[in-house]
Amino acid sequence: MPDTAIIPGSAQARVRVRYRIRSSAADIDAIALAVAVEQSVEVPLDVVRDPWVREHIVGRVEDITPAGAGYYAVDISLAADSMLGADGVPSVAQTFNMLFGNSSMHDMVELQDVGLPDGFAQHFGGPRFGIDGIRELLGVDTVTASARALTCAALKPQGLPVAELARLCRTFARSGIDVIKDDHGLADQHYAPFAERVRACQRAVAEAERETGRRVLYAPNLIGAPHLLAAHAGLLRDEGVGAALVAPMLVGLPAFHELVGDHLDIPVLAHPAFCGSARIDRTLLLGRLYRMLGADAVIYPHYMGRFAWSEALCGEIAQAALAPWAGIRRALPVPAGGMTVERVPELLHFYGSDVMLLIGGSLLQAGDSLAARTRAFVQAANAARH
Amino acid sequence: MPDTAIIPGSAQARVRVRYRIRSSAADIDAIALAVAVEQSVEVPLDVVRDPWVREHIVGRVEDITPAGAGYYAVDISLAADSMLGADGVPSVAQTFNMLFGNSSMHDMVELQDVGLPDGFAQHFGGPRFGIDGIRELLGVDTVTASARALTCAALKPQGLPVAELARLCRTFARSGIDVIKDDHGLADQHYAPFAERVRACQRAVAEAERETGRRVLYAPNLIGAPHLLAAHAGLLRDEGVGAALVAPMLVGLPAFHELVGDHLDIPVLAHPAFCGSARIDRTLLLGRLYRMLGADAVIYPHYMGRFAWSEALCGEIAQAALAPWAGIRRALPVPAGGMTVERVPELLHFYGSDVMLLIGGSLLQAGDSLAARTRAFVQAANAARH
Repeated sequence: MPDTAIIPGSAQARVRVRYRIRSSAADIDAIALAVAVEQSVEVPLDVVRDPWVREHIVGRVEDITPAGAGYYAVDISLAADSMLGADGVPSVAQTFNMLFGNSSMHDMVELQDVGLPDGFAQHFGGPRFGIDGIRELLGVDTVTASARALTCAALKPQGLPVAELARLCRTFARSGIDVIKDDHGLADQHYAPFAERVRACQRAVAEAERETGRRVLYAPNLIGAPHLLAAHAGLLRDEGVGAALVAPMLVGLPAFHELVGDHLDIPVLAHPAFCGSARIDRTLLLGRLYRMLGADAVIYPHYMGRFAWSEALCGEIAQAALAPWAGIRRALPVPAGGMTVERVPELLHFYGSDVMLLIGGSLLQAGDSLAARTRAFVQAANAARH
Repeated sequence: MPDTAIIPGSAQARVRVRYRIRSSAADIDAIALAVAVEQSVEVPLDVVRDPWVREHIVGRVEDITPAGAGYYAVDISLAADSMLGADGVPSVAQTFNMLFGNSSMHDMVELQDVGLPDGFAQHFGGPRFGIDGIRELLGVDTVTASARALTCAALKPQGLPVAELARLCRTFARSGIDVIKDDHGLADQHYAPFAERVRACQRAVAEAERETGRRVLYAPNLIGAPHLLAAHAGLLRDEGVGAALVAPMLVGLPAFHELVGDHLDIPVLAHPAFCGSARIDRTLLLGRLYRMLGADAVIYPHYMGRFAWSEALCGEIAQAALAPWAGIRRALPVPAGGMTVERVPELLHFYGSDVMLLIGGSLLQAGDSLAARTRAFVQAANAARH
């Protein structure tokens, strides 16, 4: 949905929200109005006596379009002011409240798309590195035709001791992987406590960097309540760690945005865990909203892997992450979820080189041949230049 | 689901998770195993060479039971250790990660119930006041047969200036309402900035308390990123505000838990906004998990109001909030969402007196007769003693 071209903070600035609503033709007008009221003043309209509130704050039904049997696309506009603080700055929590707070409790309503006024997404800031910044940190050419896809591997399974995870990390780093991420299941468990794991894995990466002269980014998983996230981010700074993995829906979207803005100065990979819990269009949530809130790279399950997401959806998420938008940086698409080395040519054909390929468990299946298998992955990813 | 009776921190302690899975009879065994693996080690099982990891960390399929046409209830047990920090304390974010992180991305899987080992819920703490503590703060008799239902009203619609909201607040407080909450749409917008609103409304409540000799709790809406939540909680303390309203899913569950534990010493009303976004059983999420994380009162839409939640579901949520559980306090059920004074007898018949009735927009429809209408609400709620 194109963003609306109105400056927020003026009484006229509107956020346009598209809901996918299951309804009969007879009921859709009444349901659309009910959603517009629910998402704004949340009282019967006869209660709204104040003329300024009636004109500016009450949600407006802007458009109702049939969208397949039994469904409608309903566009409602809301006052941008209702999502801003008194200082004119939009609030993450309040924005989601206005977009899908109470209406999330209607089973027939799904949040499908959002059109924001000029300056709205920019306030949140978006990625600080994005695809170009990550390539630059890695010393990967971004200007000439030799730009290549990036590679990513994962430290797993959870339950392994720190020494074992660090050994995997060293193997990946020596074998040419660009970004090595924790499994998102790694938190601060006693079998691999956070501080000990981060120090050991970063040391392994730094040693490999000295040996090979190649830059490698290690992305530990940050998970927990806000004060713990801030403390763990500080540990990453102290240890010179190059990236971070965070699941925005698990830590909470406002806490994610605050963590990125206030506590991290390295690229942030957004993990999709818990995202499927949200009845929100996945292209919107992962491709646009995670990017808006500061994700430099967005991980999502590629089709024909362990999750039944369609090829079309995966392509749309990548396009949304990369499309020019509101002056914020492009995020790096990271298809994953059961990928294999054999599928690398197909993945590169589908995505081109603006991508980071992530292979997790399938590399580990090589067992003692892990290094060779990892090198094969890197070679396959580098072979097909676009 | 009954909690499992094993102490966490030992390698044997298991969390039992029930998923509702849509599947054919031919596929359900394979799907159950895939979910058990996805929610634990997240690699093909042949990769798990470490015998300790195989025995303790890999999820176990404990039971598969048909649950209506095309559905199965699948019980999987996970290592409690995988949700604890190295200090043995469970993490909110990591617990939800293990319960429903990646599997939330499977459309055919829904999180239905959780059985926790002894000591697990207690670690999170639960309500600090609960239904009894709220009644005690209000000076409502809890011992004799005169225990009564509580009443709640809401300041709305958003868009009104502070003076108008404070006027509503004064009317409600003078008319016998026990708890006056902000509309959950009130954040820090320029038309009613947080600090100014809280001061004016609390002043109105304090004046009414002096006039009537009755205690009234005002519950402003706390919404925003973690640092703002902490700052706003501090303002509540400074102003002597008696309660707070928070939507756990909007601020994020880990931030909600930290806010309650570290920054608030007043009863917390949990608002359901954004909860419907989660494909999580609503009795589990609102009745048990919000309570576990510290909600003293739980607001939810009652049936035959603006939301199509069934009578049975509403009864189950109230029962879950009130049932003895793991030594944590009982939370106060707050049915809402389009209730009217006329329905008070029916609501009290359904819930008994362990309830707080919340009427929002319908009271405001009385316009200039707001005070009389509010008194009628209070009288109706007090009339039917149980």
